[in-house]
Amino acid sequence: MTLHTLPAIELLLQFREVRLRTVQICRPLRPEDTVVQPIVDVSPPKWHLGHTTWFWEQFFLKDYLPGYQPFHPGYAFLFNSYYEGAGPRWQRAQRGNLTRPDLEEIYAYRAFVDSQMEKCLAENELNERARTILTLGLQHEEQHQELLFYDIKYILAHNPLFPAYREDRPDFPAVAGRSAGWLTVEAGIYPIGFEGEGFHFDNEEGRHRVFLEAFQVQDRLVTNGEYLAFIESGGYGDFRWWLQEGWASVNQNQVDSPLYWHFIDGQWHNATLHGLEPLRMEDPVAHVSYYEADAFARWKGMRLPTEFEWEVAARQYAAELPAQANFMESGAYRPLPAGAQNQLFGDLWEWTSSAYLPYPYFTAEEGLIGEYNGKFMVNQMVLRGGSCATPKGHIRPTYRNFFHPHLRWLFSGIRLAQYR
Amino acid sequence: MTLHTLPAIELLLQFREVRLRTVQICRPLRPEDTVVQPIVDVSPPKWHLGHTTWFWEQFFLKDYLPGYQPFHPGYAFLFNSYYEGAGPRWQRAQRGNLTRPDLEEIYAYRAFVDSQMEKCLAENELNERARTILTLGLQHEEQHQELLFYDIKYILAHNPLFPAYREDRPDFPAVAGRSAGWLTVEAGIYPIGFEGEGFHFDNEEGRHRVFLEAFQVQDRLVTNGEYLAFIESGGYGDFRWWLQEGWASVNQNQVDSPLYWHFIDGQWHNATLHGLEPLRMEDPVAHVSYYEADAFARWKGMRLPTEFEWEVAARQYAAELPAQANFMESGAYRPLPAGAQNQLFGDLWEWTSSAYLPYPYFTAEEGLIGEYNGKFMVNQMVLRGGSCATPKGHIRPTYRNFFHPHLRWLFSGIRLAQYR
Amino acid sequence: MTLHTLPAIELLLQFREVRLRTVQICRPLRPEDTVVQPIVDVSPPKWHLGHTTWFWEQFFLKDYLPGYQPFHPGYAFLFNSYYEGAGPRWQRAQRGNLTRPDLEEIYAYRAFVDSQMEKCLAENELNERARTILTLGLQHEEQHQELLFYDIKYILAHNPLFPAYREDRPDFPAVAGRSAGWLTVEAGIYPIGFEGEGFHFDNEEGRHRVFLEAFQVQDRLVTNGEYLAFIESGGYGDFRWWLQEGWASVNQNQVDSPLYWHFIDGQWHNATLHGLEPLRMEDPVAHVSYYEADAFARWKGMRLPTEFEWEVAARQYAAELPAQANFMESGAYRPLPAGAQNQLFGDLWEWTSSAYLPYPYFTAEEGLIGEYNGKFMVNQMVLRGGSCATPKGHIRPTYRNFFHPHLRWLFSGIRLAQYR
Amino acid sequence: MTLHTLPAIELLLQFREVRLRTVQICRPLRPEDTVVQPIVDVSPPKWHLGHTTWFWEQFFLKDYLPGYQPFHPGYAFLFNSYYEGAGPRWQRAQRGNLTRPDLEEIYAYRAFVDSQMEKCLAENELNERARTILTLGLQHEEQHQELLFYDIKYILAHNPLFPAYREDRPDFPAVAGRSAGWLTVEAGIYPIGFEGEGFHFDNEEGRHRVFLEAFQVQDRLVTNGEYLAFIESGGYGDFRWWLQEGWASVNQNQVDSPLYWHFIDGQWHNATLHGLEPLRMEDPVAHVSYYEADAFARWKGMRLPTEFEWEVAARQYAAELPAQANFMESGAYRPLPAGAQNQLFGDLWEWTSSAYLPYPYFTAEEGLIGEYNGKFMVNQMVLRGGSCATPKGHIRPTYRNFFHPHLRWLFSGIRLAQYR
Repeated sequence: MTLHTLPAIELLLQFREVRLRTVQICRPLRPEDTVVQPIVDVSPPKWHLGHTTWFWEQFFLKDYLPGYQPFHPGYAFLFNSYYEGAGPRWQRAQRGNLTRPDLEEIYAYRAFVDSQMEKCLAENELNERARTILTLGLQHEEQHQELLFYDIKYILAHNPLFPAYREDRPDFPAVAGRSAGWLTVEAGIYPIGFEGEGFHFDNEEGRHRVFLEAFQVQDRLVTNGEYLAFIESGGYGDFRWWLQEGWASVNQNQVDSPLYWHFIDGQWHNATLHGLEPLRMEDPVAHVSYYEADAFARWKGMRLPTEFEWEVAARQYAAELPAQANFMESGAYRPLPAGAQNQLFGDLWEWTSSAYLPYPYFTAEEGLIGEYNGKFMVNQMVLRGGSCATPKGHIRPTYRNFFHPHLRWLFSGIRLAQYR
Repeated sequence: MTLHTLPAIELLLQFREVRLRTVQICRPLRPEDTVVQPIVDVSPPKWHLGHTTWFWEQFFLKDYLPGYQPFHPGYAFLFNSYYEGAGPRWQRAQRGNLTRPDLEEIYAYRAFVDSQMEKCLAENELNERARTILTLGLQHEEQHQELLFYDIKYILAHNPLFPAYREDRPDFPAVAGRSAGWLTVEAGIYPIGFEGEGFHFDNEEGRHRVFLEAFQVQDRLVTNGEYLAFIESGGYGDFRWWLQEGWASVNQNQVDSPLYWHFIDGQWHNATLHGLEPLRMEDPVAHVSYYEADAFARWKGMRLPTEFEWEVAARQYAAELPAQANFMESGAYRPLPAGAQNQLFGDLWEWTSSAYLPYPYFTAEEGLIGEYNGKFMVNQMVLRGGSCATPKGHIRPTYRNFFHPHLRWLFSGIRLAQYR
Repeated sequence: MTLHTLPAIELLLQFREVRLRTVQICRPLRPEDTVVQPIVDVSPPKWHLGHTTWFWEQFFLKDYLPGYQPFHPGYAFLFNSYYEGAGPRWQRAQRGNLTRPDLEEIYAYRAFVDSQMEKCLAENELNERARTILTLGLQHEEQHQELLFYDIKYILAHNPLFPAYREDRPDFPAVAGRSAGWLTVEAGIYPIGFEGEGFHFDNEEGRHRVFLEAFQVQDRLVTNGEYLAFIESGGYGDFRWWLQEGWASVNQNQVDSPLYWHFIDGQWHNATLHGLEPLRMEDPVAHVSYYEADAFARWKGMRLPTEFEWEVAARQYAAELPAQANFMESGAYRPLPAGAQNQLFGDLWEWTSSAYLPYPYFTAEEGLIGEYNGKFMVNQMVLRGGSCATPKGHIRPTYRNFFHPHLRWLFSGIRLAQYR
Repeated sequence: MTLHTLPAIELLLQFREVRLRTVQICRPLRPEDTVVQPIVDVSPPKWHLGHTTWFWEQFFLKDYLPGYQPFHPGYAFLFNSYYEGAGPRWQRAQRGNLTRPDLEEIYAYRAFVDSQMEKCLAENELNERARTILTLGLQHEEQHQELLFYDIKYILAHNPLFPAYREDRPDFPAVAGRSAGWLTVEAGIYPIGFEGEGFHFDNEEGRHRVFLEAFQVQDRLVTNGEYLAFIESGGYGDFRWWLQEGWASVNQNQVDSPLYWHFIDGQWHNATLHGLEPLRMEDPVAHVSYYEADAFARWKGMRLPTEFEWEVAARQYAAELPAQANFMESGAYRPLPAGAQNQLFGDLWEWTSSAYLPYPYFTAEEGLIGEYNGKFMVNQMVLRGGSCATPKGHIRPTYRNFFHPHLRWLFSGIRLAQYR
């Protein structure tokens, strides 16, 4: 990952802020909402709250707070996610069957671990390794903050009563009806991967050169209205647009529109975090699988960009952006004004046509940390850019998100590309 | 079912009592406990609370309270269990993914329906049909009270933390270490099925004669200690004792002891409603499947009784019992003193060797009510007697309970039989 | 089972006859037809040929031919069906993936075992036990002869080219268009189960008395035409006629007609052993599940008989039949003239409403033989009467066939019953 | 794909040769061997024979032989593999349940189509498009020749009797015990993809530049002996070496060695096309999944090459090879002498670390041909080099083979790489 050089007090403030935000995200939920796992990809919000707390015990307190005793002897088994090196764990697909510890007990768990962390951060001189782990832990918890939005949305929008998570904010800003233009990049050799100061994940390392042919990407995301035209043209019923596994997937699961779209009484609706509402045609289309994104692009006679093209385009056309962004504020989320930054950052994660593979020289670290990213580098596709649910610190041109191509519960969208 | 002749005020009091008891059973739970469905056979307690309320709307208020409007237009879809005639319904296996309506909303639903029922019962002269339905509704809700105990126990005992449902009562009384004796019945023709006054289900009707050879049943249930001897003799690994589907089932699911037994640090434990405790050897063995009961009996060189043998033996040896029983009191359960009544009623449902089939002349009623029992008469085995979680009004010699032979989450036990 | 008293030469002739018939049944097949297992219930014909040969090695030659060495050390593993006591075995569901031994090798296996059996039967004085096993082996092989017809029909009729097994015989005789009449039995106590001389299976033993109310059964089977009326009335789409598990089964598997019926170009066809042909309306409806038989009966306002009713009616109305029947001759099958015997024997196995359970005093024998019948006594329904593919020696009033209620590939039909 | 310029007589001779070879590959099989499909990835040899024949009817005769009538109206349904544009088709997973047309009928089908092709090729002046399709058809049939070896090996080696396909040839040549050396490639920009004359697939097109860091690949494949050291070090039980999906896959399927390895009586054996034999330590390890190849490389502290590295290394170190190779002769296979060509071509397909994705500018063709390659470009990994079962014309530096990462029934092996 990376060496972190912030002073201790700054780290403590960051710690408090991140930990608080996780709780704030869960605040609008009722206890019942925090328990369930309607699909295996979703984790119960209660589990996220516990897991992100266990992470501090396992990765930090054990090593840096002398004599630390875990809050509860059974929690490591319950809240270890996928770290083989951290011992046995409760089966992932059964997370939604655990009613205890209940929400209140988990908040008590959080409070205890927070207090121990405070003590540790206040009283100890942290060495570099400790600072690195601390930073990683904050990034980790922020990743779960984003996952919380995915999972909360699924839990609520999957319910036939369509309850709202909150009432007061739009999911996405409208792109004001303008036609898409093109951002053009010349052929050439470009550097790829993280370089410089600041936190980044190991999977971004391995700065290397790639040769790119001249290409263009659109200056905004595909809209609901554009995607609806694909549906209305019979796109879900025409094998020509689909990868074979995508075609099998939509047929087997009877998919005929993005996740959360419902055709009710002759009109398309969208189940959002604010409840069910008529489909907003100028919002970017969201919750599509890679298969759907790829099929839509082929139907348009275009394609998805590679992750390398995306990174180069983002550097060229939105380089100044991340510093200005203001994504998740007090537990809610507020997307950027559309248009200004070509929707490259912070609207929706954009499916690229690149498989998630290691960069040159990539080697996973030794020990538990090494399980963080590297072992997932097969069968997944890279997404770039960040969504409106992405914490600000995760918005950068080199950030590589990755998901299996059939998944739709993430905040995913489509940007079109073509060769010039 | 049967004509009911209680006066209206008595019915109202019964209604209040039954409705209250359902809530009392759920009181010790936290909201989180009421949501989940760890196996398809379990329903979330929250769902039971809603379903038993919907039942009154669907089967009673619609017909007997003029102008009745359902509390919420979406609830019939959510809370219909299996009544094809009552319209579409939420998939059973997905009940555990519904976080809304939450527990509080369901209590509001209950309060509303209760008030409507009160109004209806107070203001109307109920005709015979209405009284019959009212009685059926009470019986129905009591059946769900028993299921609530099964489901609550599974939800809690399935959790690796083994939380307790309540602290203050034993599961079962000890049978005081006495050896089993025999209750003998002579060969002859015996009447089977319900006759006389009082509520009973349609599946008990069809009073008819059966010829029985002389037989004996034991005067108590098989104990944990006796069952442990079966385990320690290698019973789960010896195909000779098992029905072929039972053998496949225990092997496939790696079953090697009754549900809720755990071998920890060299000692057998039992996960009970009071938490994990060392196995009590003189308690009746509980939570065994039909396959296990049948295999145990074969290993002993005996057999299970037929439901007809059971009914005749119960009439002969425990005829006076049900009137004295006091099974579920204020939401808890208190089994009978052992020995006195040969444990025939109110300890555990006893697997019989009879398949659940219609009695002669059985015909399901027309309409929704007809879906209550008849359509389940295949692939299930009859249990008799009632468990410590069974409401008093369901304890009678003719009551036919039925479950699939592989199930273990019910409060089931074993009584041995043999020909003389 | 039973003591057998035929002289040795007679047994040898029977042995030759039965062994030859098995081969004759397979003669019309091509090698390719003998390998596959399109559903788990079907076994490859090649496997039947091997299994029935292994049976003689395992159950007879090992014990009665001193020094007998199995033909091939690997065949016991391949051809043991379900005898836990006979050691490990190839997984049932994988039988259709074994191309070797090929058909020719299996015929060589048969020839070798036949010669050893001849030697054993010619040279040894067989004791009673040996004669009993020999007779059981012949009955066993005849049961597989019937299964061969089921499996061959499935393999061929499942093929979209509908190849014929043979050209020259009708599946079933027509019942000449006559209306159904009633065979009436008075109320009373009747004996059930086998008594007297002659072979019978252990599951027929336990002669006992049952009390039956007065009832009637129809004097012929339900016809295709009658069943078509059920279809055309929307019977498959109306839950009221169906057991809950039957309703789930037909919906899940999209069943809307008996197995082998095809609606092609506006007309119903039937895939038979003679290829695809237009549906013959007066033939008895075949290849229905218990669920379908039960639903049809309920739609008619009638019911299926119990196995006890069937046995009593058969004794009363067709007692003289079995001696005259001539069912499987030289490997083909020739059903009885319709009408004469009320189609009680040798047309189709008739679903009864009785679950397959042990008779009183039933105990499985010790050892391998004990696995023959007893361990299947759960979750199956009894059929009575015998089909046009049933060997003559299996036609008797007490014979109990049994299958799971969802199965349709057997030669099953429907007889209606009602109380008087 | 590509323009083909051979004269017609040469094409006719090629056609005869390729068609004959397919039959020669199947000759050693018994009819029974040609029917089954033990895993979904395997197709029955009989089906390959039919499918490669249907391909000529569908893609060539329909268009280029005026008035051509298909041999049988039902065969298109049976033998279409995955061409959505060619109409409905028999379900892939059910291919092994079709006993008809039997082998003889399929040979008749082949003979008919061959005669029609001869007629067409002899009598018509083929235009360029026809020649292109003809060449593609030959390449297609050769691909199935290779698949036939995979499938035949699986069918026979999966049988517990381990029958041999043929007796007279070794699977692989020994690599003579020499240590592995390194083939070094300097950093730089290299061209990737097909250029020039000669047949190639569309997925090889899109000649483009890539920048590669300096790297090395070993000069031979990993041997059985080397892989055994991985096993004996506990490699299958140590999560650190495995991708997460690989770890799940080997645990779920209880994989602990390459496919076809068997540990019998204290010694490792290998089930080959010549029957079961003791493991030959110096043969290249075969039948490993991508997960196993990747884990082995990680355990060695190395990695797999990318497909780009592989192509550049192959051009540099084995450029002259393909012209000399003589891979499949008269239906058998004869690998190259080891060492001389660094085993780059014709021993085993070598897993690369590259996902199967389109090259720049790739666009699938219109129509049926467009379904050949492009729609599989997700979730698969690229293999390079060719195996001992690969027809000569498929051996070239740019050929991209691709399979899902969990598969092992293909002839796959491992070459190690590292950065310098």
